[in-house]
Amino acid sequence: MRNIAINTDRLWGTMMEVGRIGETPGGGSHRLALTEEDGQARDLFCRWMREAGCAVSIDAIGNIFARREGRDPSLPPVMVGSHLDTVPMGGKFDGIAGVMAGVELLRTLNDRAIATTAPVEIVVWTNEEGSRYSPFTMGSQVFVGQQRLADMLAGRDVLDPTHGDTVGQALAKIGYAGTVPVGGRKVGCYFELHVEQGPSMMDADVQVGIVVGSFVARYFIATIVGEQAHVGPTPMAQRKDALVAMSRLVLEIDRIGRSHGPDGRSNAPHLELYPNVRGVIPARIELSCDVRHSDHASMLRMEGELRAAADAIAAASGVDISLRQYHEFGPVRFHPDVIDLLRRTATDLGYRTRDILTIAGHDAVPMLDVCPSGMVFVASRAGGISHNEKEFTDREDLAAGTNVMLHAVLARAGVAD
Amino acid sequence: MRNIAINTDRLWGTMMEVGRIGETPGGGSHRLALTEEDGQARDLFCRWMREAGCAVSIDAIGNIFARREGRDPSLPPVMVGSHLDTVPMGGKFDGIAGVMAGVELLRTLNDRAIATTAPVEIVVWTNEEGSRYSPFTMGSQVFVGQQRLADMLAGRDVLDPTHGDTVGQALAKIGYAGTVPVGGRKVGCYFELHVEQGPSMMDADVQVGIVVGSFVARYFIATIVGEQAHVGPTPMAQRKDALVAMSRLVLEIDRIGRSHGPDGRSNAPHLELYPNVRGVIPARIELSCDVRHSDHASMLRMEGELRAAADAIAAASGVDISLRQYHEFGPVRFHPDVIDLLRRTATDLGYRTRDILTIAGHDAVPMLDVCPSGMVFVASRAGGISHNEKEFTDREDLAAGTNVMLHAVLARAGVAD
Repeated sequence: MRNIAINTDRLWGTMMEVGRIGETPGGGSHRLALTEEDGQARDLFCRWMREAGCAVSIDAIGNIFARREGRDPSLPPVMVGSHLDTVPMGGKFDGIAGVMAGVELLRTLNDRAIATTAPVEIVVWTNEEGSRYSPFTMGSQVFVGQQRLADMLAGRDVLDPTHGDTVGQALAKIGYAGTVPVGGRKVGCYFELHVEQGPSMMDADVQVGIVVGSFVARYFIATIVGEQAHVGPTPMAQRKDALVAMSRLVLEIDRIGRSHGPDGRSNAPHLELYPNVRGVIPARIELSCDVRHSDHASMLRMEGELRAAADAIAAASGVDISLRQYHEFGPVRFHPDVIDLLRRTATDLGYRTRDILTIAGHDAVPMLDVCPSGMVFVASRAGGISHNEKEFTDREDLAAGTNVMLHAVLARAGVAD
Repeated sequence: MRNIAINTDRLWGTMMEVGRIGETPGGGSHRLALTEEDGQARDLFCRWMREAGCAVSIDAIGNIFARREGRDPSLPPVMVGSHLDTVPMGGKFDGIAGVMAGVELLRTLNDRAIATTAPVEIVVWTNEEGSRYSPFTMGSQVFVGQQRLADMLAGRDVLDPTHGDTVGQALAKIGYAGTVPVGGRKVGCYFELHVEQGPSMMDADVQVGIVVGSFVARYFIATIVGEQAHVGPTPMAQRKDALVAMSRLVLEIDRIGRSHGPDGRSNAPHLELYPNVRGVIPARIELSCDVRHSDHASMLRMEGELRAAADAIAAASGVDISLRQYHEFGPVRFHPDVIDLLRRTATDLGYRTRDILTIAGHDAVPMLDVCPSGMVFVASRAGGISHNEKEFTDREDLAAGTNVMLHAVLARAGVAD
């Protein structure tokens, strides 16, 4: 079995074909969760998997499971998956690589007529990115019971709160409001391949990163309340401008990330400003922000600095600033058996490998709640940039990662006689 | 004639009645241009004016003219007006005071059965605020030929660009897509009463401010282009975060306004951020900003500092920042005959008066293009705050300003035998 390998060109071809759905002028993909384009990518996946002989089922949150039956259908399936949605003006690799690795390894099993003892399922999770609907990794979180289905189906379109569809409405529109209950069944193991989305593997010339765990992150909404007033006659000294106070906070957030070593990260990527009209001093802002670090104590110090900065700015500006934590991530430790298996497989196949931590969230994290779960990363090129049209990964690196997935799946699912 | 005076309680009553349309919990009004609430306020005005015997006409941009005929209908009318729209969560006085001053002085003429030689028209201008549609003073600008009707009717809803009505659609919905051609007729004179919207008259205990001219202001859109990337794995040193760069610029704008004496003003009230989702470093921002001063040379120095700050921040942050001027305002000088008349009238009536400059735009400014035009201010209380629910003006101050308007109108329109 050791000498079988996936078809690199076929893998690349599937990725490029999916990437053309919602393709952007700069060579990326704009395919937000549950839009028409997401529906088209899902349709293509389902067609390919049916052509490969799989039974395709869709659950009530729109997760897609393409099942290749095992010799013993009563065994829990080995799952491989990721997502097909992108951020706005995103790349062709983030998420897509993990799904297409699954498609390719399944086709390879078919080519070789290899039967597995346990079933193998290739999964497309709904709304991993969290751009159009919150939270991220929505589909996998509902699958493992971390989120309630009804709450998620009612989720509003963040990018079009007034007129946009809820998750439930959008699922129905693209034909992915499935009838299968979400989760509640045994999973043998979960594997996910993903692009790194940073430069560290590229810089270290690593082919396959063994994801052993995660950074730890806390996410906040900073609510900044100033006083709305006329932009003209209101004397400068009398103003309580929420945007000026927010600007001070954003610079402090940026400073905090930079001052905690190479693993410090901090962000303020999203805001809602009221009233946001030209004649009125900004009155109220909700700013999403987060701090992240590989080291838990460092992250807590960063949080402390963030809270102190918010208090100091509020006191100096006469505005009110409150911080509400809305999410926490990590520290995650992937399953030791899966880590060992992936590391051993990569080494056996002769790839240059290294342990790595994920800084972003992935569907493999919620899956830890229900089964042994693990990930491999392949290097991001173009400076490691991701969530950008320029996102890029070499075909040989994708092949290397997919070969690791193939052999890990065979090891867990078992090759039938 | 000198001893006739308006009815203070009736004036206050009309203002409070209009203020209940779109009333906010904090005692202000939320009545954006051409919304259903704006339509209701317009309907009330039209009903009152018809009950007062006026002929009401509506032009193609939705400006309303309530005409009280003069003894000589061939004479150009003396106009009195302002606006009924508000900013989001605005006050009950800004704009409304000027229209209701017109309603009240016309009712006073009726009470006394005073015929004027020239006709008197009370005007409601469309979209003075510029919150929902741009630019501000839209109705008066079209009336005097500063803006093309077709361009303005096509104006998009700034607060709901995707689904909102254009100006033309919104006018039709509320029943104010009039058939009368806009402008193109002679106006004898234009008077406008307005609340100051700042604290200077309150601080100086002035009852009636004679508005002799304006500050000078330049308005810009700063376009800040960074690089979109993943919020997590992207190293801090590698980021080109448009929001961080914008935050530096906002603080510089705020500093510039504060460093040019008591008449310096600077603002950054409105922004559009892309992609504005939690997982992506901000890529592109359009920030509306402006600098204002009573002194032209000082305003130009402020503009110079703004441009230098934008260049310095761009160079230091690795982002691109470009400034595009989209509007200029002032220096305005109101018509000397009107200034003299208003000043003399206020003094004759025994009011404490003072010359003042407007820092904000008003419909009386475009009207300078077609007739002698002038304004009186009455004091804003509650610290001078405006564009806020707390906006407040005393009834006695409103009565004082309206009495000045009444006698100025009589002086210009002429009392018929």
